[in-house]
Amino acid sequence: MQNKLKGWLADNSVTSDPKDRILILDPAGKVELEDIYKEMLSEDTGLRKETIVHVVTLFLRIVARFLMNGYNVNTGLFHAVPRFTGIIEKGLWNPLKNAIYVSFIQDKMLREEIAQTEVVIQGEKADVMYITSVEDRSNGMTDGSMTPGRNFAVYGSYLRVIGDDPTVGISLRNVSTDALTKVGTDMYSDNDPSKLVFIAPSNLPDGTYELTITTQYMRSATALRKTPRSVTTEVVVGKNPDTGDDDRPVIE
Amino acid sequence: MQNKLKGWLADNSVTSDPKDRILILDPAGKVELEDIYKEMLSEDTGLRKETIVHVVTLFLRIVARFLMNGYNVNTGLFHAVPRFTGIIEKGLWNPLKNAIYVSFIQDKMLREEIAQTEVVIQGEKADVMYITSVEDRSNGMTDGSMTPGRNFAVYGSYLRVIGDDPTVGISLRNVSTDALTKVGTDMYSDNDPSKLVFIAPSNLPDGTYELTITTQYMRSATALRKTPRSVTTEVVVGKNPDTGDDDRPVIE
Repeated sequence: MQNKLKGWLADNSVTSDPKDRILILDPAGKVELEDIYKEMLSEDTGLRKETIVHVVTLFLRIVARFLMNGYNVNTGLFHAVPRFTGIIEKGLWNPLKNAIYVSFIQDKMLREEIAQTEVVIQGEKADVMYITSVEDRSNGMTDGSMTPGRNFAVYGSYLRVIGDDPTVGISLRNVSTDALTKVGTDMYSDNDPSKLVFIAPSNLPDGTYELTITTQYMRSATALRKTPRSVTTEVVVGKNPDTGDDDRPVIE
Repeated sequence: MQNKLKGWLADNSVTSDPKDRILILDPAGKVELEDIYKEMLSEDTGLRKETIVHVVTLFLRIVARFLMNGYNVNTGLFHAVPRFTGIIEKGLWNPLKNAIYVSFIQDKMLREEIAQTEVVIQGEKADVMYITSVEDRSNGMTDGSMTPGRNFAVYGSYLRVIGDDPTVGISLRNVSTDALTKVGTDMYSDNDPSKLVFIAPSNLPDGTYELTITTQYMRSATALRKTPRSVTTEVVVGKNPDTGDDDRPVIE
């Protein structure tokens, strides 16, 4: 099978040259474990679903455990290694400033698959609004984790929040409860086309959220889009929900 | 089981404040698929090794394929998405300047495991030599891929290559053939404690290499370490070994 990735040419928001173009993925969709299981079953009809689920779950759990015990893990698909973020003050781990994360890089199996992949450039798509990355400014984490009451940055293009439409703004929808929290404009620190920084609502309960930026911004000194548009990314509040006394980092 | 990560306090080579300390992982070792399989078998003695290998291999292959067909893949362990690197010139994909890579971020299962992880700060380790990241400067890839004849950067601490010992220098050992290639000092472009940039040998055959930096550098105006020391990281040459005419990206 020949793989295929489709992309749109878009302004490069990182450089100042307006002619610079980068390629933004035109996503085919989202895949969860259930979809992967389904594909595995269709590829090997001799396997039972229970077996697949059991083996994959065990595999993922053991990879996570090896990582959180200091091992470099190489699965062929990725190479992963645990790392620490933040400056360590006075030799003490501070959960407000320091965090553990896992750095992944693609490995052999993906490189081979990439070599079998065709890139289809679908042409210019003017004024594409997109998010390239996010950052919890309190600890430097870029995995989508957000700390209530601390600064959070969103990088991308056409993100500036501007316009009178009531839908315009930054909102957080809890994916479990559907509860919607709007970020007040008094919480914004940067509101640029390529960079938003705002204080995450301090009362935000732990959970997974859809962060949505809605704006009427367009590349013009004064004009606004008639219809607002949005981009969404997933963020997580409370990545250490179970941290009790026993789990506190210690000094030996 | 309580997880445990051990780290050493080390100079932060990124900031200029000499008192800033970051935590560097004291690695427990390396784990490959075989080790993961062994651990899975010991955890569930009812599983046959053939079943484990078959299911995990199928799982990894299908994840890779979904990714290379434009899907965002969420496995619980990680969230992965394909991306493109480099500026697209004249609307054309240029394999010398553009590349496909997969960006991974940790997901729910890892966050839960992190919450069960104790961090042990083992204290100061003076003058730790370490590599934090590498970059193929020809295309911005940071996954360890290296392009022969193009600039390659290594970031970290205490990396400056200096000293008269014959082992001092930058070398590349092919892990399959054991063939050793030294990088001539005339290929160096930056030789700083926190940053090395050099032109990768232009005749380097495709393969996986151990990149080793060996130096007598210490934080002193004139003095050198009596005994050289080294750090090693893995790099890959020829990530698109099978790219033939049929695999070339096309414009539609």
